[in-house]
Amino acid sequence: MPSAQKIMEKFKTKAYGASGGVLGGKTLQAMDVERDGPKAHEVVIDVMYCGVCHSDIHQVANDWKNTVYPCVPGHEIVGRIASLGSGVTRFKKDDVVGVGCMIDSCKQCASCRKGDEEFCSGPVGMTMTYNGYWKPDGSDFNTFGGFSTQIVANEEFLLRIPESLEISAVAPILCAGVTTYSPLKHRGVKAGDKVGIIGIGGLGHMGVMIAKAMGATVVAITTSEEKTAMATELGADEVLISTDEEAMKAAEVTFDFLLCTIPSGFDLNPYVKLLGVRGSMVTVGLLGPYDKPTDNMEMAKYARSVGASFIGSIAETQEVLDFCAEHNILPEVQMIDIETINEAFTKIKDEDVRFRYVIDMQSLK
Amino acid sequence: MPSAQKIMEKFKTKAYGASGGVLGGKTLQAMDVERDGPKAHEVVIDVMYCGVCHSDIHQVANDWKNTVYPCVPGHEIVGRIASLGSGVTRFKKDDVVGVGCMIDSCKQCASCRKGDEEFCSGPVGMTMTYNGYWKPDGSDFNTFGGFSTQIVANEEFLLRIPESLEISAVAPILCAGVTTYSPLKHRGVKAGDKVGIIGIGGLGHMGVMIAKAMGATVVAITTSEEKTAMATELGADEVLISTDEEAMKAAEVTFDFLLCTIPSGFDLNPYVKLLGVRGSMVTVGLLGPYDKPTDNMEMAKYARSVGASFIGSIAETQEVLDFCAEHNILPEVQMIDIETINEAFTKIKDEDVRFRYVIDMQSLK
Repeated sequence: MPSAQKIMEKFKTKAYGASGGVLGGKTLQAMDVERDGPKAHEVVIDVMYCGVCHSDIHQVANDWKNTVYPCVPGHEIVGRIASLGSGVTRFKKDDVVGVGCMIDSCKQCASCRKGDEEFCSGPVGMTMTYNGYWKPDGSDFNTFGGFSTQIVANEEFLLRIPESLEISAVAPILCAGVTTYSPLKHRGVKAGDKVGIIGIGGLGHMGVMIAKAMGATVVAITTSEEKTAMATELGADEVLISTDEEAMKAAEVTFDFLLCTIPSGFDLNPYVKLLGVRGSMVTVGLLGPYDKPTDNMEMAKYARSVGASFIGSIAETQEVLDFCAEHNILPEVQMIDIETINEAFTKIKDEDVRFRYVIDMQSLK
Repeated sequence: MPSAQKIMEKFKTKAYGASGGVLGGKTLQAMDVERDGPKAHEVVIDVMYCGVCHSDIHQVANDWKNTVYPCVPGHEIVGRIASLGSGVTRFKKDDVVGVGCMIDSCKQCASCRKGDEEFCSGPVGMTMTYNGYWKPDGSDFNTFGGFSTQIVANEEFLLRIPESLEISAVAPILCAGVTTYSPLKHRGVKAGDKVGIIGIGGLGHMGVMIAKAMGATVVAITTSEEKTAMATELGADEVLISTDEEAMKAAEVTFDFLLCTIPSGFDLNPYVKLLGVRGSMVTVGLLGPYDKPTDNMEMAKYARSVGASFIGSIAETQEVLDFCAEHNILPEVQMIDIETINEAFTKIKDEDVRFRYVIDMQSLK
């Protein structure tokens, strides 16, 4: 067994990442990355499964102009604890745990004290699972995600996986699940509400199942007629094809809440018209401008509002895991090997996935 | 005393309106308009004072492409009841009452039953005080507002003026007051909140006083340095000059709520940045598109939202009158004669009014 001193040493893990170099630097390839060993309250996790999020594609491509290379994506991580820092009290070796979008935060700012770590206003904000600041002084900038054999995380940022959830499919709850659960919860969606989920992909398919379990009447809103059957199987009460002008017209002023999961710029005005009096819409996943200015005439006419949301807190991530266990909700996933990850990225861009790829990380060993 | 039959007859009132004709048709001029006599639950009111709202200018100019001419504006009306329909029970002759933006609604739709008459979804929606449908079948389209010697309204749409409020200054509460009060109330503004009021004109000056009375720390946000002293006199704790980039930068992520009263298109993104975690902004008075698309990156980063609001209900209008009485809030008005109304319109467009013109309707007699 290594001494406390030894455990603090840097160690190498296998990973799949983008080098950022001139030639093919935005294609994922096998690489070794060096990680800091666990500090007192940190653990080392053997990664078993890792979901593939649309944001991984944006981050690898530097679409948000903030990517630090090498970039090892992956923030829907399920694994087994391999070793622990000396101060870890909440978990033990061999526990199966989850890691979502964050692995640390300042724990002292107003947001952290409220349990809203995703809005940490500490010196460098929260530490993202990958492409994040690792040390508060910024001296060790980059973190590496779950497309890797091992990862290190603070024990306060670990999630317990309820026993009844099949661990090979649970990973997407850690980002897609909490990202859709958090706004549905904050907007108080309840039994009898009419809720529309716009975009039926990785996030949207979780949104449909969670809103349905909250008791809402759920309408899946999609451009693809082919998704009608799938959305119905997920539990949607109705499917609205957003390119069908007549159907969109008939649905105006009828929704209490809309959760929009379209991951790139679009015109929000046709969706605004669907909202009823004091109805609200929340867009997740779009980290840039809409295509057109909002028409405030349509907004004012019914006192509507349009907001946004960003992942969710650690407490909410645990909540949605427990919620999914309680309501028998499991992401619908397609298991892949790490070697096919670049192909998977292309298929996600082409919306050719039902509904989330999960990498069996055994394939990296 | 006229018989019930006689009271139903049409009658003429003096008014100031826009003819809509080719030559000068958008300039207000003296005219006579014919009104329906009061039905069973309606009253005839001798108009004493009428406020001048920025929307009157938009409506007369047909900026919203829905103006029916002749157009007699005025929806901040204070007057004395001159005669009553046979079924009126809630008011008596000579009562001093207020009329705001609506004079009737279907009273049967979901919104009306909830007391949200402003969102009436009856056959023709609510009846606006002017430029509104008068009969449900649309056969008698146009209503005429308070720039007139008399007006007819349903007793359920009359407001009681608290005795302590000076009746020559109270009129702007009926639109500017409720339009700012309603979103402040619906967003739950409370003691200790940091609230920004953007645009310190007719609506904004009411917003400052009402938010302050709700216990908020109020920041007046304006382009005009000259308004600093006035805003402070109204009760603003701070003044933020929106063209001062450094001051705007320093105020980022600090506001719980922003109420925006800018009456024409603008870029909302610089204001979004002022909102703190889960902060929200509501825009009133803008009945058209913003100048630029919302950047959802800024929205998502702090789970912000941007909404809109439209006037307020009759119950809320009574509430804000009572609230103003309780907190000694009175609109700051400049009294004018009807003959100078076109000049007043120009001054409002030039922001040269402190803060609301009220017409002494004696000047029309």
